[in-house]
Order: sequence, then structure tokens, then C-alpha cells
Amino acid sequence: MLSVEEALDRVLTAVPVLGTEVIPLPDALGRALAEPIDSTRDLPPWPNSSMDGYAVRSDDLQGAEVSRPVRLRVVGEIPAGAVAQRPLRGGESYRILTGAPLPPGADAVVPQEEVERDGDQLGVARPAAPGAYVRPRGEDIRAGDRVLEPGTTLGPAALAVLAALGRPVVRVYRTPRVAVLSTGDELVDIGTVPGPGQIPNSNSYALGALVRASRAHLQDLGIARDDPDAIEARLRAGLAADVLVSSAGVSVGDRDFVREALDRLGARVDFWKVSMRPGKPMTFALIGNGGTARAGASAAGPSERADRPFFGLPGNPVSCMVTFELFVRPALRRMGGYRVIHPPRVRARAGEAIDNPGPRRGYLRVQLAGPPERLTARPTGEQGSGILRSMLLADGLAVVAPDTRIAPGEPVEVILLRDEGLGGVRDDGGA
Amino acid sequence: MLSVEEALDRVLTAVPVLGTEVIPLPDALGRALAEPIDSTRDLPPWPNSSMDGYAVRSDDLQGAEVSRPVRLRVVGEIPAGAVAQRPLRGGESYRILTGAPLPPGADAVVPQEEVERDGDQLGVARPAAPGAYVRPRGEDIRAGDRVLEPGTTLGPAALAVLAALGRPVVRVYRTPRVAVLSTGDELVDIGTVPGPGQIPNSNSYALGALVRASRAHLQDLGIARDDPDAIEARLRAGLAADVLVSSAGVSVGDRDFVREALDRLGARVDFWKVSMRPGKPMTFALIGNGGTARAGASAAGPSERADRPFFGLPGNPVSCMVTFELFVRPALRRMGGYRVIHPPRVRARAGEAIDNPGPRRGYLRVQLAGPPERLTARPTGEQGSGILRSMLLADGLAVVAPDTRIAPGEPVEVILLRDEGLGGVRDDGGA
Repeated sequence: MLSVEEALDRVLTAVPVLGTEVIPLPDALGRALAEPIDSTRDLPPWPNSSMDGYAVRSDDLQGAEVSRPVRLRVVGEIPAGAVAQRPLRGGESYRILTGAPLPPGADAVVPQEEVERDGDQLGVARPAAPGAYVRPRGEDIRAGDRVLEPGTTLGPAALAVLAALGRPVVRVYRTPRVAVLSTGDELVDIGTVPGPGQIPNSNSYALGALVRASRAHLQDLGIARDDPDAIEARLRAGLAADVLVSSAGVSVGDRDFVREALDRLGARVDFWKVSMRPGKPMTFALIGNGGTARAGASAAGPSERADRPFFGLPGNPVSCMVTFELFVRPALRRMGGYRVIHPPRVRARAGEAIDNPGPRRGYLRVQLAGPPERLTARPTGEQGSGILRSMLLADGLAVVAPDTRIAPGEPVEVILLRDEGLGGVRDDGGA
Repeated sequence: MLSVEEALDRVLTAVPVLGTEVIPLPDALGRALAEPIDSTRDLPPWPNSSMDGYAVRSDDLQGAEVSRPVRLRVVGEIPAGAVAQRPLRGGESYRILTGAPLPPGADAVVPQEEVERDGDQLGVARPAAPGAYVRPRGEDIRAGDRVLEPGTTLGPAALAVLAALGRPVVRVYRTPRVAVLSTGDELVDIGTVPGPGQIPNSNSYALGALVRASRAHLQDLGIARDDPDAIEARLRAGLAADVLVSSAGVSVGDRDFVREALDRLGARVDFWKVSMRPGKPMTFALIGNGGTARAGASAAGPSERADRPFFGLPGNPVSCMVTFELFVRPALRRMGGYRVIHPPRVRARAGEAIDNPGPRRGYLRVQLAGPPERLTARPTGEQGSGILRSMLLADGLAVVAPDTRIAPGEPVEVILLRDEGLGGVRDDGGA
């Protein structure tokens, strides 16, 4: 059986990075940048005042004292958005407001609190150092500077920089579209009263939320009965998406309905088991162009489309969510062009014993407490693959080797599940 | 001058928590729950099989051995979504699939790998413990259990639980609408070539992104010239929103245009300075119903609307973003009903000296490196309030007391800026 690392490696090798598109800057929040950004200008574009005050020549103020203030003539005013009518000459000053360009000839600003003004006469009682209260041209960013690298998640500060560079649009990677299917004769839509032996379909909602939390677009394919025809029909409807994800239906009793449907779609199954707990029955396949051809090649246009990755996740709700986090989310991030694709990991100490009997690596749901430098991990109660409460309470997944019991106080590695969670260095600046 | 804590306390006391609304479950991702959720049912609703196999009475299998297997008769099959036709009697078994309800009379499941089947005859070579491979009714959640508290951020696991409880809709707090205004004669729209003394309007993009990263809705009021009439007109257009945020225009030279506009709107200014660096000139006001009455009371309906909080942020890009993070984001979270409203904080060690000269507390932009338990913080270069690069590179804000130099290796507290950043326990499970 494949290890998690081997399986993830196969997934990340197989999935295509999607194409790029040019979109308006505000829409780019949280998207992955698809071009390097080199500044085309100096920021600020000219030396400017950091205070409301008076632009001066520092030479003029040498020797200024309270008892013997230097007198300057105010020859004009430079508000924000304006420039000086003419260069500053010896013995002159300009009234200047914060952010306004320094007039040629000036090399310092005296704050308004430090002067005496009477009509067009200014009294300055102290010398000014050259450059005082002046922001030099290009002190933030210089023309030619590499400002942002491709693959960066565009957060508020990146959008601010792109705006300051005057960029109304930006090239980003396309957002993956993910078609989600639940399978199972026992499932009813939520809001419908379940009959005997029936339960509400929760996996569609879990997967839909996980897709959107991964910044991907959702196409909900609903519920398919345990029947290869029904599953095939719904999967065909999902072939216009970039990725297909189903839950359950793999190895239902004596038949494997999802495998049958995949065969009919001409899919190549890469693997169908991973050595992990929960989540062992986990199928990864690629659905080739044949599937599309029958489904509706028009959507894809004349050119061949890339293979569509297919993830067949287990039906148990916890297994379904954990396998999504470990395999589908990184795949969606890779497809969406993000440089950072893996969830952050932190090191914690076991607050109580964390037990993983059996031959498969465990991904146990834990709660974290304490400051990041002294995190404690405790299992969220019963860890059965049907126990949704264990996910509801979880901050992360403790990674535990086969047949291993981590004693209280021993270190344990934890994969963070929360977007706004704890610890773990990652460079996502996204929103 | 107010301290940051005093100012934030005034803001959080003044802002109203918004009303609630009932929305479809999938739309609730990332929203704050506005009702307690008590389970109305047991999950799972009946004891069910955790394996594909055979439902049995464990009593029947006492004494089973490889050399002397117990023979049982297979009297039916229970696939997912079905129930047994009749209770199990002594000497009988039901074929049962994963998740299907255990038939009355059965108390254990024998996995299919462990039996020999021949027609309707089953040979079992080992005893089964009572409860083996059976998930008891209510093992996940019991009817009456408090499952979720109001104020919880609804993440994928919470949506999965609500779906499993059969809830198609959920009551959440309303999402704040935030009207954003940039002011300044020097500003031009991005995409327009700036004239002499002009710069692109970056604050609208920074604030718009910060609003959306705070999960609030944006109303962009554009750019107002440095003129009280222009500012007043745009702010009036924003009175239909829940919150108004402007940047710059506070104390422009000899006049305070934003203050003049606020006076005309009948606003009560609570404070207009906070002892911090960057960000000292930071106005907080409440615009009462008078403002609305003149602007368009029809939108508000017949009943009086709550005061609208107004934040007048500094115009320097870094000051603008930092004051948003420290004051506006927590206010929006409070208004949106979230239990967790403050950004996470971590403790790091200074990787190089972090210097905060002057009488105001510093919020210096730093990069964090290393594992969460041994984070190192280094300033992101020049810390001027116009240096956007310092924000672009920042993982967080180092909080440094006035006139203090933190030497390399000394501890420093850091407020995290990244949603998907590092460290700091918070209970947001949002997406």
C-alpha cells in the first residue's frame, strides 16, 4: 500500500497547473500572482514632505538660534497634488503640506510647529539637517525592483503596492472548478425527513465548504444512488470542471460502483488505497479526453483539454474530510498556481496519551492549547471515522506512526486544519 | 492622548452588534453563528455496521474455533439505506454493508474477510465480542447535546455537523457593509497617468482588500477632493452602510476637511488621536440618525437606525493599514457577531535590534521565521509610514513600548497580520 507521501507525490505530479487570466486588481485578493512584478517607477516618485511645514534650504538655516532666528520669505504654497511654481532660491521658503513634492532647490522641511510666521515672513530658530522631514524619491521602491514573485498569494499589502504602481489589472492563475458528488442509497437531502435506514447527506456540505475554503469554485453534482449508471451520468456532468471529487461508493459490498463508472469514462486509476487511518480507501484517477468527448467537447473548445484529476474519497465523514485536507487541498493549491500548497505544521507536546494502534499511520484529531511556543495537543475524544464531533473540535491532525503511543509530554507533529488557526510558518498573505 | 487599549475599548463599546438572518447552510461558511445548536437527534441515529460483513448474535459464536466453526444461516441482506425485514433470531445472520442499521437482535458484526460463505450457510471460526464492528446509536452526538455556541465561526466541520443534523438553514449574524472613502487632491485613479505632484490612489485598494479580508462587504465611495462639500457628499452616500472608513483628509494643513464634513453630518467625535506609531491621527466618531435623515431615510425604513461608526484613518499607506488592523478589523468582527475578534499574537525573539524611539508605542512591521516554538522577528527594513514595502514583507506587527530598543535575542510580542499566518491560539474555524 502506498504511503501518504508516495500518494501525495503522485497526485502533485499528475495535476496540471491551470492557465492564467488578467483580472481587475480588486478581484485579485487571495489569488495567486502569475507574473513577476517589477516596478516601473520610483516610489515615492519625487522627494516629498513628511510633515505640514516649510520647505527650506538647510544652508540658509546654519547658525539659527532662538536668540537670533533666521528670517526667510514665504514665496508660495505647495498643497498635496500640486508642484512649486519655480525653484527655491536662497532666503526663500515654500509652505508645504504632507506628501507634496519638495520644490527644486529645497533639501529640508521645517515643521510648522517650529516656526514663527508673520505675513510672508518666516522666523526659524533652529538649523535643519539636510533631508530633515523629507522622504527621498524611491525610498520605498525603485524602478526595476522585483516587487512580487509569481505564485505569491495577493493580500491587502500586495494590492496596495500594485495600486501604488498604477496597475489596474493583474495576471493571476485561474481558480480551479471542482465538481463534488456524494454517492449512497442511504443519503437524503438535508431538510428531507430520513426514512428507515436513511441519513442526511452531510458529505456534500463538508466537501463544498472545503472546496470554497481552498479558494476553489464549487459545482455540486448532488447525490448519486449506488448504481454505476447514476454515478457515470453525474460524473459526466462534472467533466466541464477542472477536478472531480466523490465520496463513498468505493467498494460497496461486493461491487465497486465508482470504479465501474470510472472504467466506463476511460479513466486511468493511479491508486486506490493509501496506508493511513482514517482514509485507507482513497482513489486517485485521471479522466482523459475520451470522457470529455462524449460529454460535451464544445465546452472545451477545439483544442484538447488536460486530463481531469478525480479523487474518490471515503464515505465516512471524518475520513472524507481528512483525505480532502491531505490530498485534494494541496492539489487545488498547486492547480491554482500558489507557491505555498501545504497546510502549516506545528510541533506540540501531547497533553494526554495519543494512541495509534494498527499498521497504518494515524491522523488523529487534536485540540491545541497554550502559546505557540508551548502548544499542547489533546485528542478530541473518540476517534472513529464516523465521529464528526472529533473534527468539529479539532484544531489539527496529529501525525502518529503505526503501532505507536505518544506518551503525555512527548513531542508530536500536528497539521493545522484552521485557516485562521495556530502556528506554522507559511508565506500566504491571502484573505 | 489615548492609549491604544483605551481607544480600542471605546470603539468596541460603541459599535453595535448587527442583527441576524436565516440563510441556506452552504452560504454560512465563514459566518458567525447566531443561535445555539442543540442536537435534536442521536448521531448515528441507530447502531450500524462499521464494516461490510455479517450481523450476528455474539452469544451464537461462543466457542467458535477454526477446527470447529459455528454455522449460521444467512436470512437476508441489509444494504445502505435499507433496514432488516425482521429481527435476528438464534443461529441466524444478516449480510450487512458499512453504515447499514444493525437488525434488532444482533449485537456484533463479523467482517466478510473472516467468514466462509456457501449459499445461505455461513461458517465463523472465531467468537465475536458484543459490540464488535458496531457503531452504537448516539456515539457521535446525543439528542440534547449542545453542539455549537453562538459566535462560533462556521467552518467545514460545523457545516458537516449541521447537515448531519438535517438543518437546511441556519441563523447567522449579518455581514457588515463598509463604505470606504479616500480623500486627497493628489490622488488619481489607478490606470490614469499621474500628473505633476499626483500619485495613484492606493489606499482605496488596501482598505477594500482589508474590508473583504475581514469578511465584510465593501461599498467603494471613490476619491473625494480636499474639500468639505465633496467629502460630506460622499460620506452621505455611505450612510446606508453599517460602517464608514476614510483615509487622509484629517488635518490637511490649516484645515481639517474630514472634521468639517463630520460636523455637518452631526457626528459625535469620540477621539481623534491615539498614542501610537504609525497612526497617531486616527479619528473615531459616531454618525447619528440625523445624518441618515437628510441622506435617505427610506433605505433605513421607518424605524430608527443605530449610529454609524466612522473611522478616519491616516493617509500614509502604512498608517492606514496598521490602524485598520488594530481598530477597524476588531470592530467589524464584533459587529458581525464573532466570538473571536482580535488577531492572534505570538511571542518571538528579536532577530536583530527593534528600535522604537519617541514617546508613542510602536507597531513595527516584522518578518517571522523559524518554527512556532522558536520564532524570530526581524524588522522589514525602513519603517517610515510611507514605506509600503515594510507592510508587503510583514508577517506581523511587533509591539514595542515608547523609547525602547529591543536587543537581539530579547522577547517581543507580535500581532499576526496574515490570515494564514503563524502562531497564536484562536478558535476561528472559518474559511
